[in-house]
Amino acid sequence: MTSDTVASVELRVDDLVATLWHAAGGLDPAAPIVLIGHGGGQHQAHPAVTGRARMCVEAGLNAAALDLPGHGSRPTSAGDSEFVAELQRRMKAAESVADLVAAHNSLLAGQAVPEWSALLDRLQRNECANVERVGFWGLSLGGALGLSLAAHEPRIAAAAVGLCGGDRLLELAGHVSATVQFVMQWDDEQVARADALALFDAIGSQHKTLHANPGRHLDVPIFEREAAVTFLARALASSEDDS
Amino acid sequence: MTSDTVASVELRVDDLVATLWHAAGGLDPAAPIVLIGHGGGQHQAHPAVTGRARMCVEAGLNAAALDLPGHGSRPTSAGDSEFVAELQRRMKAAESVADLVAAHNSLLAGQAVPEWSALLDRLQRNECANVERVGFWGLSLGGALGLSLAAHEPRIAAAAVGLCGGDRLLELAGHVSATVQFVMQWDDEQVARADALALFDAIGSQHKTLHANPGRHLDVPIFEREAAVTFLARALASSEDDS
Repeated sequence: MTSDTVASVELRVDDLVATLWHAAGGLDPAAPIVLIGHGGGQHQAHPAVTGRARMCVEAGLNAAALDLPGHGSRPTSAGDSEFVAELQRRMKAAESVADLVAAHNSLLAGQAVPEWSALLDRLQRNECANVERVGFWGLSLGGALGLSLAAHEPRIAAAAVGLCGGDRLLELAGHVSATVQFVMQWDDEQVARADALALFDAIGSQHKTLHANPGRHLDVPIFEREAAVTFLARALASSEDDS
Repeated sequence: MTSDTVASVELRVDDLVATLWHAAGGLDPAAPIVLIGHGGGQHQAHPAVTGRARMCVEAGLNAAALDLPGHGSRPTSAGDSEFVAELQRRMKAAESVADLVAAHNSLLAGQAVPEWSALLDRLQRNECANVERVGFWGLSLGGALGLSLAAHEPRIAAAAVGLCGGDRLLELAGHVSATVQFVMQWDDEQVARADALALFDAIGSQHKTLHANPGRHLDVPIFEREAAVTFLARALASSEDDS
């Protein structure tokens, strides 16, 4: 993606290819960087990702992303195919998909954590970014990744996440100390309301805030994208001691 | 209050005196107006009110406020004194104050509704403001007033409220159709978590959003003030059909 305001470059990270977005005028390695985790079935070049990357760059932040396992150009596993088949079966039968989605997303997120840590190492090695205080932005599968990464990776200082739940994330949440903005949908057919509230409650961070809106999984209001960028820019610019 | 950016004038509304805040350069009657409801024990000249009024004016909005019954220059009733005595007794005894506060705030809010409608009439009569789509901003007692007013007053189009609960508001909430941003504190000693969530759930508006933060009743983060102004300016500028 190259435009009047945003430029992107590819970075090799072990066997993977990441995207780094920065201002078209040139990369400022001192600007805070936000890692963007895509949703289930998406990838790093999906408009939902590139649109967020543009918003970050326009707010003075750099951004970077990888494909999650089984997504984009990466091979699909037998488990991925079984997941999709079972998901489609349950949706046709109008059965609950919450446990199934939570388990699969947590599995992929756990596999992805070392890959996104390697991305941070790569950015640091090439002096592409200040990786001491990094942001994360992602919902659903991307939200599961964000909380899993924040639980394992002290360089994540702020995470705009949400639309996720389940037992595995609930166990990890207590290990998160990054400032978190958590978005949930009040009538989410993929995450039970009580599960989302319990996950927010379990997040160990001193600074966390919950945004909830009516509607289903895909009905997150547009204004939450602006709210996420505002949150990330504020949290990465300060120590949050004054919030 | 007069400063480099904000001017205020007093308006007589029946037996009460209201404050109208506008840009120091002059009143623009076409700008949207926000009614600011003070908290328990405060009044229209309290810094928590004048600070919000300043934020509104700096965002291009006018603002107006009244004292609630028993507050500011208004006489205290026997019921008010009994409430304060019982509140202090329960706090000393570390007993729950939630039901007591909710009942008293709902009572005062109910008494205040016709007074704030009269304020809107007065603003309209004097062509001081566009009162077709009005905003409201208030927490705690001010939040109870905002929901009560929005339930009765079709001119309220957007309300940034919260820190309130209780059976009376729960009954009224279904009649609210204004766009609502509802703030709650996760560990509020004056409003049970479940009561705040139930009140948000009961709000009848098509467009509503919940913000929750850790901490007690008075610990609302500073950033929620910016979020409220952003919300009010956005909601009053549009029909919210695109949100």
